[in-house]
Amino acid sequence: MSLILDVSTSQFEVTQWQDGKLQTASDCLAEETPIALVYNGVSHAVMLATAQDLEDFALGFSLSEGIIEQASELYDVDVQVRNNGIELHCEIATERFVQLKEKRRTLAGKTGCGLCGSESLEQAVRYPDRLLSQSVFAATSIQRALQAMQATQVLQQQTGATHASAYVLADGTISMVREDVGRHNALDKLVGALEKNRVKTGLANDGFIITTSRASFEMVQKTARAGVSLLVAVSAPTGLAVRVAQECGLTLLGFARESRYVAYSHGERILNQ
Amino acid sequence: MSLILDVSTSQFEVTQWQDGKLQTASDCLAEETPIALVYNGVSHAVMLATAQDLEDFALGFSLSEGIIEQASELYDVDVQVRNNGIELHCEIATERFVQLKEKRRTLAGKTGCGLCGSESLEQAVRYPDRLLSQSVFAATSIQRALQAMQATQVLQQQTGATHASAYVLADGTISMVREDVGRHNALDKLVGALEKNRVKTGLANDGFIITTSRASFEMVQKTARAGVSLLVAVSAPTGLAVRVAQECGLTLLGFARESRYVAYSHGERILNQ
Repeated sequence: MSLILDVSTSQFEVTQWQDGKLQTASDCLAEETPIALVYNGVSHAVMLATAQDLEDFALGFSLSEGIIEQASELYDVDVQVRNNGIELHCEIATERFVQLKEKRRTLAGKTGCGLCGSESLEQAVRYPDRLLSQSVFAATSIQRALQAMQATQVLQQQTGATHASAYVLADGTISMVREDVGRHNALDKLVGALEKNRVKTGLANDGFIITTSRASFEMVQKTARAGVSLLVAVSAPTGLAVRVAQECGLTLLGFARESRYVAYSHGERILNQ
Repeated sequence: MSLILDVSTSQFEVTQWQDGKLQTASDCLAEETPIALVYNGVSHAVMLATAQDLEDFALGFSLSEGIIEQASELYDVDVQVRNNGIELHCEIATERFVQLKEKRRTLAGKTGCGLCGSESLEQAVRYPDRLLSQSVFAATSIQRALQAMQATQVLQQQTGATHASAYVLADGTISMVREDVGRHNALDKLVGALEKNRVKTGLANDGFIITTSRASFEMVQKTARAGVSLLVAVSAPTGLAVRVAQECGLTLLGFARESRYVAYSHGERILNQ
């Protein structure tokens, strides 16, 4: 029997204990589902993620991991539900698939984990290119988005167990939100959605990203790779994340609440109106 | 120039914004350092982790990932600091290294990520064996440990950015704590320390584990593999974690605070004295 479900949430009968008193209740939990990324028929990686917005996830993951360089190189995503998880069958440009196979061949006989496909220090940390954007942002826009954030987190309200990444326009309007049990997955989903929108509208990504989690190195890396120059984290950054943000020209704010934030890099780009 | 440090924390000059007022301050951040696990000279994986308790990490990771089956199969760990991270050179039993090479050969030409070394759904989710323990625990012991927990989290007090895993004796005394920027790493470090202690003292792991994070599938899997039959999570579990805990006989408590908890599986093993 498989214990794996292909839904975002499910209900459980639980026992609540409070100050010595017991009572039964029903609780809505976030599911995590093994999601396999399959490129041109070849299985590449399995992530534990929330089974929604999976086309966005396929595009964002493929971009963040450098498997493709632009959205147009992902021709099709076919979502196939299996007994033991979900397969995302991605059809990518032949040139990219050849590169992926070459990378796999080079890694032949090695397995990777932790940092995707990295099994030695040389491959582990790829610093993002320097950002070209000179965008500035009003502190009031950031506050406005943070105030509106909670109401957009549907899964979090149901389960209390998911992270969210949001894309916010310069005026503070939240334009897209993606949720997942994993903070990296939520950001990959947002990056995918953002890129699809950029291709459709032709508009640059001159807004900013809010994450409800901490800002680790990989969160900065994914944001910078998406060409977004401001990352606002509700929780703490790591030291490595700050140094990478300083180097690549990304403004990194941490401990961001409705009435406060801490600027860790390039704080000069926030206008304190 | 490398941006990577081999310390647990570092100081940054930051700008704090509060209700429109700016001031500069000094802030202590948790570092994350690429840590490569090298087995008998062959690089296997790189994790972003906190650079402390690295021998515990090497042992716990090796056990959790099934690279070795018991502590005695890890002969030696040599910690080597590099410019771009830290290498943990692990010397393991020849038989286990042959198995690891065989596994790598089978995966030849494939890279894995997300779930360690898994690139297809078949390999992704390995359910833990059924726990043999019939231990029961007093609710008062759990409350006592939760009350004491915060004071033991040294890194968290400095940085506000790290997770902790603690091993607690049946009477509620916290006997070991390990901290890390990653919750999986913190638990792997604790599992390593616990196993070293078990070998030294010959005592079974009949206490319980507290994690300051959510309880995902992998947290349940690592706890069960360590032979510990109660996992207390400060935050929410996932649905998959609950079903796996139910199946393998692990008691899983979530949203655990000083005066309350929710029992998600095998709550009958908590004595409500």
